Amino acid sequence: MMSEDKRIPRSREDDYSPEIIAERQKFIEEKTGAELNHTKQYSYDPHVMAGNIENIWGVVQVPIGVAGPLLVNGEHAQGEFYVPMATVEGTMLASYNRGMKVIRESGGVTTTVSAESMQRAPLFIFNNARDARDFQIWLQENFAAIKAQAESTTSVGKLLEIENYHFHNYIATRFDYSTGDAAGQNMTSRATFFACEWIQKNYPGKLRNYMLSGNYDTEKRTSSVNLLKGRGRRVTAELTIPRQVLVDHLRITPEQMQYGYQISTLSSFQTNSSNNASHPANGLAALYLATGQDIANIGESNQCTVYQRMTRSGDYYFSITLPSIIMASYGGGTNLPTQSECLKMMDCLGKGKALKLCEIAAGLVVAGELSLAAATRVDKETRTNEWVDAHERLGRNR
Amino acid sequence: MMSEDKRIPRSREDDYSPEIIAERQKFIEEKTGAELNHTKQYSYDPHVMAGNIENIWGVVQVPIGVAGPLLVNGEHAQGEFYVPMATVEGTMLASYNRGMKVIRESGGVTTTVSAESMQRAPLFIFNNARDARDFQIWLQENFAAIKAQAESTTSVGKLLEIENYHFHNYIATRFDYSTGDAAGQNMTSRATFFACEWIQKNYPGKLRNYMLSGNYDTEKRTSSVNLLKGRGRRVTAELTIPRQVLVDHLRITPEQMQYGYQISTLSSFQTNSSNNASHPANGLAALYLATGQDIANIGESNQCTVYQRMTRSGDYYFSITLPSIIMASYGGGTNLPTQSECLKMMDCLGKGKALKLCEIAAGLVVAGELSLAAATRVDKETRTNEWVDAHERLGRNR
Amino acid sequence: MMSEDKRIPRSREDDYSPEIIAERQKFIEEKTGAELNHTKQYSYDPHVMAGNIENIWGVVQVPIGVAGPLLVNGEHAQGEFYVPMATVEGTMLASYNRGMKVIRESGGVTTTVSAESMQRAPLFIFNNARDARDFQIWLQENFAAIKAQAESTTSVGKLLEIENYHFHNYIATRFDYSTGDAAGQNMTSRATFFACEWIQKNYPGKLRNYMLSGNYDTEKRTSSVNLLKGRGRRVTAELTIPRQVLVDHLRITPEQMQYGYQISTLSSFQTNSSNNASHPANGLAALYLATGQDIANIGESNQCTVYQRMTRSGDYYFSITLPSIIMASYGGGTNLPTQSECLKMMDCLGKGKALKLCEIAAGLVVAGELSLAAATRVDKETRTNEWVDAHERLGRNR
Amino acid sequence: MMSEDKRIPRSREDDYSPEIIAERQKFIEEKTGAELNHTKQYSYDPHVMAGNIENIWGVVQVPIGVAGPLLVNGEHAQGEFYVPMATVEGTMLASYNRGMKVIRESGGVTTTVSAESMQRAPLFIFNNARDARDFQIWLQENFAAIKAQAESTTSVGKLLEIENYHFHNYIATRFDYSTGDAAGQNMTSRATFFACEWIQKNYPGKLRNYMLSGNYDTEKRTSSVNLLKGRGRRVTAELTIPRQVLVDHLRITPEQMQYGYQISTLSSFQTNSSNNASHPANGLAALYLATGQDIANIGESNQCTVYQRMTRSGDYYFSITLPSIIMASYGGGTNLPTQSECLKMMDCLGKGKALKLCEIAAGLVVAGELSLAAATRVDKETRTNEWVDAHERLGRNR
Repeated sequence: MMSEDKRIPRSREDDYSPEIIAERQKFIEEKTGAELNHTKQYSYDPHVMAGNIENIWGVVQVPIGVAGPLLVNGEHAQGEFYVPMATVEGTMLASYNRGMKVIRESGGVTTTVSAESMQRAPLFIFNNARDARDFQIWLQENFAAIKAQAESTTSVGKLLEIENYHFHNYIATRFDYSTGDAAGQNMTSRATFFACEWIQKNYPGKLRNYMLSGNYDTEKRTSSVNLLKGRGRRVTAELTIPRQVLVDHLRITPEQMQYGYQISTLSSFQTNSSNNASHPANGLAALYLATGQDIANIGESNQCTVYQRMTRSGDYYFSITLPSIIMASYGGGTNLPTQSECLKMMDCLGKGKALKLCEIAAGLVVAGELSLAAATRVDKETRTNEWVDAHERLGRNR
Repeated sequence: MMSEDKRIPRSREDDYSPEIIAERQKFIEEKTGAELNHTKQYSYDPHVMAGNIENIWGVVQVPIGVAGPLLVNGEHAQGEFYVPMATVEGTMLASYNRGMKVIRESGGVTTTVSAESMQRAPLFIFNNARDARDFQIWLQENFAAIKAQAESTTSVGKLLEIENYHFHNYIATRFDYSTGDAAGQNMTSRATFFACEWIQKNYPGKLRNYMLSGNYDTEKRTSSVNLLKGRGRRVTAELTIPRQVLVDHLRITPEQMQYGYQISTLSSFQTNSSNNASHPANGLAALYLATGQDIANIGESNQCTVYQRMTRSGDYYFSITLPSIIMASYGGGTNLPTQSECLKMMDCLGKGKALKLCEIAAGLVVAGELSLAAATRVDKETRTNEWVDAHERLGRNR
Repeated sequence: MMSEDKRIPRSREDDYSPEIIAERQKFIEEKTGAELNHTKQYSYDPHVMAGNIENIWGVVQVPIGVAGPLLVNGEHAQGEFYVPMATVEGTMLASYNRGMKVIRESGGVTTTVSAESMQRAPLFIFNNARDARDFQIWLQENFAAIKAQAESTTSVGKLLEIENYHFHNYIATRFDYSTGDAAGQNMTSRATFFACEWIQKNYPGKLRNYMLSGNYDTEKRTSSVNLLKGRGRRVTAELTIPRQVLVDHLRITPEQMQYGYQISTLSSFQTNSSNNASHPANGLAALYLATGQDIANIGESNQCTVYQRMTRSGDYYFSITLPSIIMASYGGGTNLPTQSECLKMMDCLGKGKALKLCEIAAGLVVAGELSLAAATRVDKETRTNEWVDAHERLGRNR
Repeated sequence: MMSEDKRIPRSREDDYSPEIIAERQKFIEEKTGAELNHTKQYSYDPHVMAGNIENIWGVVQVPIGVAGPLLVNGEHAQGEFYVPMATVEGTMLASYNRGMKVIRESGGVTTTVSAESMQRAPLFIFNNARDARDFQIWLQENFAAIKAQAESTTSVGKLLEIENYHFHNYIATRFDYSTGDAAGQNMTSRATFFACEWIQKNYPGKLRNYMLSGNYDTEKRTSSVNLLKGRGRRVTAELTIPRQVLVDHLRITPEQMQYGYQISTLSSFQTNSSNNASHPANGLAALYLATGQDIANIGESNQCTVYQRMTRSGDYYFSITLPSIIMASYGGGTNLPTQSECLKMMDCLGKGKALKLCEIAAGLVVAGELSLAAATRVDKETRTNEWVDAHERLGRNR
C-alpha cells in the first residue's frame, strides 16, 4: 500500500473545482520542489475540462502562429483560410507559409474526402478454423441485424461495413462506422460492444469468446490495413503548379522535383516507411493541437502517400492521399476555450464542419510538402541549403 | 500577387513584440470573424517564444493532469515520479494512473537506455552501380576525416556511425550522432551538410550529386530501419508483476494476459502495424506535450515492440522496447515557461537530464500498456467491459 | 540486327518436333561448348510440352523422394498420403518425414480451406480524386453487369468481388475469382480484360484510361494485401500434439516450443518478414515442383502466419494459416508425364481435386514446421544441435 | 506405432541403390495405385543424388527452353549467353526472350555485384535488457576471436560482420559470411554454431542461453532486414535503352514506361509488397531450377527494387537491384547431371563461377521486366493487350 501522503489529492464531489486543483498544485510543489507559476494560469473555469482529463492541475501554453491564407478548392472548404498552427519547432510554420504562397499562385489546392470509417475491431475466438470460417458467413448474412444493434446505442454513428479476416481459429473484424462530426473512437467502442454482446447471445454456432479489440483497428499506429481500408477520413489534396511558379517561389524545376520524388519514394519503400512524404506529421500535429484534436492520433495520421508527375506542358502536378485523418469539429477537445477559438478562425466549430476541417488539414499538408521538398536541395552555385539555413536563421540553433 | 490586405502582419524589427502580436490578433479577428479571448492570454513575455514559432499570436491552453507516483528503477531515473500529462482525451490519464499503481505494487519498472542515434540521411548519386559501390568503400575508409568535419560544427554532437545502403546508382546513408541533451535534428542537419560538402570536394571518384536527406532518416514516420537501427534513444522498460498483484489490481490472470498478447501480436504482424502494443502513442504524446518536445515525433516514437511471458512461478513478466524515443531536456521547447515547470516536476530540465527523461517516458508507457491490455477484456460474469465503462464514466460520452 | 547464326532455331510449323529440338540441342552445343547428354533424355513425346514452354530443347531431372504417410483430417483430403517431394536440398525431406510421424502420433492434422480468390488487378486512371471517387461508387453499383461480362469469357471462373482502393486520381482494384481446379492467372487476365473493355465503353463518367494490372494483384511476391485478402486458396492446418508425443519424438517440451515461438514471431515482426514460420517455402517448393505447379508462386505462397499455444492440459496446439496457396490439379503443368504421376500418388489429378491438393500441401507444411522448430534448439547436455548434425550426416557437407 | 506395411522402405547400407529405389517404387505403386512410368526414368546412377535428397524413388522431368543470347556487360559475366530456363508456364520464356532482344539492341545490360553475405542468426537470451546491452558491447570487442572460431570450421567461409540488434532481454544477431561459390546455408550454420558454443563458454557476463536461429536470417522469406542488409549476393543490373529501340521492339515510349512505373511503385508501397517489379520470380525460378539451385530460395530472392527514369535525351534508363540472389556454381544441386549441363552452357559450373552466374541471373531478370512492363499496356487503337494475347497464342488456354 502506498503511504497516504504520496497519494495525489482527489475530490469525489467535484474534481474540477478551483479548490481541489489548488490542492493538487500545492501537492506537486511540495512533492517535487517545482515552482508552478505559469502552468497555473488557465484563463477559464476548469470545469470545462471535465471529460477531457483527470487529475487536472494546470495547463500547458503552446505558442500558436498563423499561416496563410491557404486557398482551398474543396467540396466542404472553399476559399482562403488563415490556419492556426501550434508548435515549439521553429521554422516549421514559416515553411508551411511559404508553401501556401505557392498554392495561392497556383490557384489553390483541390481537396476531396473519398471515404470515412472509424473502427472498433473485435476478434472472435473459435475452437478451430472451420468454426471460424462458418462464423464469417453468418456474420455477412446477419449484417442488418448487427447494424441495428450497434446503431441503437448512438444517434450519430452508422455501421457501414464489417470487414472480416480469417486466420487460425480466429475471425478478426473491423466494424467501420461513420461518426458525424466526432472522431468517434468511444462511440464506436460502445456500439461495437453492444453488437458483440448481441452476437455472443444470438450466434447459433460455437463461439468461444471474443475480444473487443483484437488490434485490427490499429489505433494510434500506422498499418497496412489502415492504408488500404482507411481510418477516420481518407482525404486527397492535389494541384498543378505552373512551372514558372515553382521556379520563382521554390527555386526548383519540375524535373528536379520529380527526380527527388522518385528517390524518396524508393527510399520509403526500401525502409518500409509509413509514408513517402516529407513531413506530414508536422502540419497535422500543429493543427491537431491548435484545434483540440487528440494529438496521439499523429501515430496513425502521418501515414499517407505522395504522388507527382510533370505534365505534358511541363508543369508540376502534386497529389497527396491521407487515408487516416482523424479530426472532429464537435466533441473531444474541440470545445475547450482556446481550441474553439482556433476552430472558429476557419469556421470549423460544431456540427457539420468536420469534413471541412479535414479538407483544410489536407491542403495544409500539401503546403508543407512543397516547401520542404524544395528546401532539402543543395544549391549548386552557392553551395547552400535552405533547410539548414532556415534553422540557422529562425530556429533554436542561434 | 496577394493583395496587401490579406497579408499577415509581420515586423522586421521584432516579430515577437506585444505590438505586432496584437496587430496579428486584430488581423485574425477581422479576417476570420473569430473572437480571440483565451488564446490571447499567455502568461509571459512572448519574446521567449522566438525560435520556437513564427507569426506568433497566442497560445493554446491544454489541460495537464498528474499521474503517479511512477516508481522507476532506472540508471538515470531512480525513485518515484509524479508525471505531468497534457491531453484532451478523457480517461486516458486515469488509465495510466492505474497502471502506475500496479508498477508500484510490483516494485517498480526497470528501465535501460541501450543505444542512441539521431540521424540525417544524405543520399549520394552516381552514374551507375559500380561507382556507387566504390564510394561505399571509400566512405568507410574515410570515416575519421568525415567525422572530424561533421563534429567541427557542434560542441555536442558526435558522429557515431555512417550506415550505408546500396541500391541502383545510389548510396543511401544514415549519419548517426549522439546529441547530448538536445533532440538534435537541426544539429545533425548542419553537421551532415558540412560533412557532405567536404565529401563532395574530396571524393576522388565520380560523385554526381547528393541530397541532404534521401528519406532514410525516416523522420516523423515509422519505418523498419528505425525499428532495427533506432532513432533518438532506444529504451527498454521491464518488470515482473506478481500474479496476485495482477489479479487484484487488474482483475486478470497472467494466462489471460498472455493469451491476449499472443493474439494482438499476431494481429499486428498481419496488419503490418507500427507496434504490437496497446496505445504507446497516448502516454508519449501527453508527456511530449507537457514537456516541450516536438509532438510531431509521435509519428516515429509510437513504434515499438511489446514482449511478455508467464514466469515459471506463475507471475507475469512484461517488457517494452521503444527504439525511437526523441526527447530533450535542453533546447527546443523545453525552456518555455509552462513546459519547463513540467520538466522540473521530474527534475528533468537542462543538461544531463535527457536520458532520465527517456527512462521516465518508457516507464510511463508500461503503465498505460498494462492498464489497457487488461481493460479491453469482457468480464464473463458481469458482461461488462472496463474500457467502454470508463469512457462512459469519465469521458465526453456523457 | 543479330547475325543469323546467333539466332536460336525455331520452326513455324511445329516447334515441338524431335527435329527442331535436335536442331536446338546441336545449336546449343555448338554455341556454348556444353555437351548435352542427360538433358536430352526426356521419356515422352515432346509435343505434350506445347503450351508449357517455348524453345524447348531438353528436360531437367530433379530427384523426387517420398515422405509419409501424412495423416490429414481435411474436408477434401482424408486419410494417409504418401507425398512426393522434389528437391536438391539434402536433409529437407527427412525433416518433413519426421514431422509427419509426429502428426500421425497426434491423430492427424486438421485442414480447412476457408476462402479462395485469384486476382487480376486493373487500375483505373482519372483526371482527379473526385472523378476517381465517383467511379468507385459506380463500380459497386454495376457489379452484376461487370460480373456477367467477365464470366462470359470462361466456363469455370466466377467473379466473387471487386475490391477497390482509392488513392490520388486512381482506383486500384482486385477482381477476385474462383477458378475451379486451375490456378487461374490466365483465365482471370482474359476475363478481367474483357470486363475492363466493357467498363471503358460503358462508364458514363470521365475515365481516362486503365492498366490491366496496377500491381495490386501482387503476383509472385508477398504483400500485406495478399495476407489480408488472400490469393489462391487460404488454408489452415492445425493439430494438438500430446505433450508426451512432442517430448518423445522431438525431444522438446511444449514450454520450450512456446518460448521459441514467441521469440521468432517477434523477430519476424521486427524484421518485417513475410512469415513468422520456420521454412514453409521448402515443403511447398518441393510439392509444387513434383506436381507441376508454377514454382515462381513460391514468391507469394511462402507468406503465412504460425500460431501456437500450450493447452490447459499441457499439450501443444499448433496452427498455420497459408493465405496464398496457388495449386492446380488441372491445366498448367499438371498433365506433364512425371508430374501427373506424382499427382496420382495422392489421387489429386484432374477436376475436383484442387482443394484436396491444397489441404495436403498445408498439412505438409505443418510437418516441416514442427520438425525444424524443434531441431534448431541446442541440447543443453550434449551441446549438440540437430539441425547442424543432420546436415553433417545427410547433406552435401560431407 | 505405425504398422510395418505402411513404412517407406529404406536401406541402411545404401539407400541410393537401384534395388532400394525399385522397392520404393513398388511400394508407392501398391500403396497409392499410381502407375510410375516416367518418374522412374532418370538417366544416371542414382548415387549421384546422395546428399541431395532422401527416400529417392524417381525424378521429375521439367522442360527446359533456351533464351538468348543475353548480352551482359558484367565484371564476371561478359558477352553473350544462351540461358536455360526450366518452367511449365507457357509464354514466360518467350517474354524473356523478347526482352533479351531489347537488351542486345541497347548494347547489353551492365551488372554489378556490390555485396555478399550469407547469414545464420543466433539470438542470445539474457535476464534483462541491461545484461543484453552489455553483451552487445562485448560482442563487438571480441569480433576477431569469434571470427577465428567460426572460420576454423570451414576452408571457404569468412565471417564479415556480426550485425546485432537489441530488443527486450535479447540480442538478435546476423553472422554475415562470404561463402565462395557455394550458397552456404549449411556452412554458416556449422560455423556459427561453433562460434556460439565458444561465446557460451567464454562470455564473462550472464548469458542465459541462445537459439542458433532467432529468425533474423529470414531464410526463404522476404524481409526488410534482407532488403537493407542483403542475403546472398546484392546484384544490380542496369541499362539505357535508346528511345527508338523501345518504341520499335516494345511498342511503348519512355514516357509511357515512366508513367506505368510510378503507379506500380506506388501500388507496391501501398500493398507492402516484396518488390515493385513485374515478375522477377519467374526468371529466377526458371534459372534456379535449371541450374540446380534451391528453388525454395525464390521465397527471398524475389525481393528487389526497380528504378527507372527518362534521360535528358529522351531515352529510357532502367535499373534493378536484387539484394538476395542466392546462387551457387559449386555444391548443392549444381553437380547433378542435367543441372551441370545447364551450368556449362553458360560456363558457370564449378569454382570461381558463382558471381558470374549471379550477374547472368540479374541480366535475365531485366529482360523479363522490360518485356512484361510493356505487355500489360492496352493498345489504344486496336484495344488489344499483348499479355492476354500471348497467353491465348502460346499458353494452356487454347
